[in-house]
Amino acid sequence: MARAHNFFAGPAVLPLSVVEETRDAVVDFANLGVSIMEISHRDKAFEKVVAEAQADALSIMGLSADEYAAIFMGGGASFQFAMVPMNFLHKKADYVNTGEWASKALKEGKILGEAVEVASSKPTNFNQIPRNIKYSGDADYVHITTNNTIFGTEWKTDPDVGSVPLIADMSSDMLGIRRDFTKYSLIYAGAQKNLGPSGIVMVVIKKSWMEAKAKQNLPTMLKYKTHVDAGSMYNTPPSLPLFVIGRTLKWIIKEGGLDVIQKRNEKKAKLIYDLFDAYPAFYKGNVVNKEDRSLMNITWNLPTPELEEKFLAEAKSRKMLGLKGHRSVGGMRASAYNACPMESVELLAKFMEEFYKNNKL
Amino acid sequence: MARAHNFFAGPAVLPLSVVEETRDAVVDFANLGVSIMEISHRDKAFEKVVAEAQADALSIMGLSADEYAAIFMGGGASFQFAMVPMNFLHKKADYVNTGEWASKALKEGKILGEAVEVASSKPTNFNQIPRNIKYSGDADYVHITTNNTIFGTEWKTDPDVGSVPLIADMSSDMLGIRRDFTKYSLIYAGAQKNLGPSGIVMVVIKKSWMEAKAKQNLPTMLKYKTHVDAGSMYNTPPSLPLFVIGRTLKWIIKEGGLDVIQKRNEKKAKLIYDLFDAYPAFYKGNVVNKEDRSLMNITWNLPTPELEEKFLAEAKSRKMLGLKGHRSVGGMRASAYNACPMESVELLAKFMEEFYKNNKL
Repeated sequence: MARAHNFFAGPAVLPLSVVEETRDAVVDFANLGVSIMEISHRDKAFEKVVAEAQADALSIMGLSADEYAAIFMGGGASFQFAMVPMNFLHKKADYVNTGEWASKALKEGKILGEAVEVASSKPTNFNQIPRNIKYSGDADYVHITTNNTIFGTEWKTDPDVGSVPLIADMSSDMLGIRRDFTKYSLIYAGAQKNLGPSGIVMVVIKKSWMEAKAKQNLPTMLKYKTHVDAGSMYNTPPSLPLFVIGRTLKWIIKEGGLDVIQKRNEKKAKLIYDLFDAYPAFYKGNVVNKEDRSLMNITWNLPTPELEEKFLAEAKSRKMLGLKGHRSVGGMRASAYNACPMESVELLAKFMEEFYKNNKL
Repeated sequence: MARAHNFFAGPAVLPLSVVEETRDAVVDFANLGVSIMEISHRDKAFEKVVAEAQADALSIMGLSADEYAAIFMGGGASFQFAMVPMNFLHKKADYVNTGEWASKALKEGKILGEAVEVASSKPTNFNQIPRNIKYSGDADYVHITTNNTIFGTEWKTDPDVGSVPLIADMSSDMLGIRRDFTKYSLIYAGAQKNLGPSGIVMVVIKKSWMEAKAKQNLPTMLKYKTHVDAGSMYNTPPSLPLFVIGRTLKWIIKEGGLDVIQKRNEKKAKLIYDLFDAYPAFYKGNVVNKEDRSLMNITWNLPTPELEEKFLAEAKSRKMLGLKGHRSVGGMRASAYNACPMESVELLAKFMEEFYKNNKL
């Protein structure tokens, strides 16, 4: 079976080598005669998978294991929307609202305490990253969402929030762009964009801050400390998803690390954004400021709904999947995560060039 | 690679046909040219997987979809220990303490409200299911743990708790034994024993009771109602684990359903328990009452630690894995879940017979 060109927004494309390693481990893990799905999480061969994934994640991010812990949990990033305020919202928290997921994080913060929307791009349908934000200054934390999967905006530089702890949902650009990760006290990312399959979240947390600030009187599974202290093994972790993350992290290292990955992502995104700039009346990008354009999720509309239908049908016939935009913006979305091959994006760009020539008004 | 004989307590053996279907879907799902790990959860082919798993689960249990919902969530059964009282503990809840996991459920109940330990077999190291339990009568619910994975006891009959809602952690015998599921208001089960791989929990809940009794002011992801209303798709579910559960449920149906499965489990367990009864001074079962013996987890000690070491080493050399007992009881444990083949248990029984003859004192 030939591989399709996969532009799904998530769950999304994985490196082919990781898919193949997973296929092999589903049949037989570590030459033990059992599947990766069938082995005790307390077996040494599996414990090694967990320990290496934690170490590799910190290594790629340039973080010290003395200062930070990388842990893996179930429940999805949506569950982190609640877990963050449950642990760290004592009096007040600042939220920057840059999209649907940022709005959901804010909503959970409001259920659990005083969550302040310090900036929002909602009035312009989230088509930009807010500038000149006035943070409260005395908040327990500032929460941002680094990449907007739906509308295609991305924080290209990490905000300066002074001494207030910075927390980020990096689900859709985690390890796709170099950040100064040391600026963050807590980072979480649902795996199903850049890290692996769905059903697992990576959390990177500054340990001293967690020890000093996390609430004590919480259910055990809802405390970050439980998972940090147990090295992600307080309860049975999602074994296969964790295995896949481990292989994906090793793939990132083998490819040359985060800076090489980012350069490739920039090159891929440019192939499409250049078409927006060349034919702005035809390929109408949703993002107003070029510097806010996401490297991961590229969104646009065509002049008419009929042309959009035609575009999607022709793309599908060329084995390009997942290009339909989210219902809240319509149009098209090409998600070009780390594992999306250059050749898939080149094929898309070539098709867009042809489609423009055949359909321009 | 030859399959090992897998007696792990969980993650545990899966049906070979399900392992093979998973291997194929990891490479290509539904002839789409993408892996089951790489497809949008909103794709119709995946939505079908979720809908069928929900329907098949209720069908196997003999429950009506009008009355009950089957949903799938991340976070593990350990997370349900907190979620149950968060949703349903208003004043007081009864807990029956029959093991380590039951104790953990009780602990979370106590963090969140008044959780009463109405009975406990802890004084005798959980070697039996308590009899003649005095329930409070006015509790919000009674919580039991139907099977003790570590010590090898099992509730063979469903308790009668009057009109008080009954809640059960069925993680380690879910769909391995026929129960009167209509007696339960809420059932949860971590998948990694009888249902699939780790990283996903099946919850079966009585809808009218949930609507009437669940607390409203909770974070969105912590409300059962969120997941019931969205058909397990409020957020991205653990796609691959859910696919595997779906295939395992279809395997149960194909094998003849729950009663056929239970008969086979009884036959498998008898092969080992008969050896306990034949050589009680050598194969010293941990469970005092025969009627409490688990069909799923069979635990025993040998006369000396040296013999136990020898037993495990010889078993391993015959490709029998996962027989070491949990550290809190020591000795041996053979987990013979639904998917454990008859031939594996026959091989174990044959080996035990030989080992007895070669090593009896």
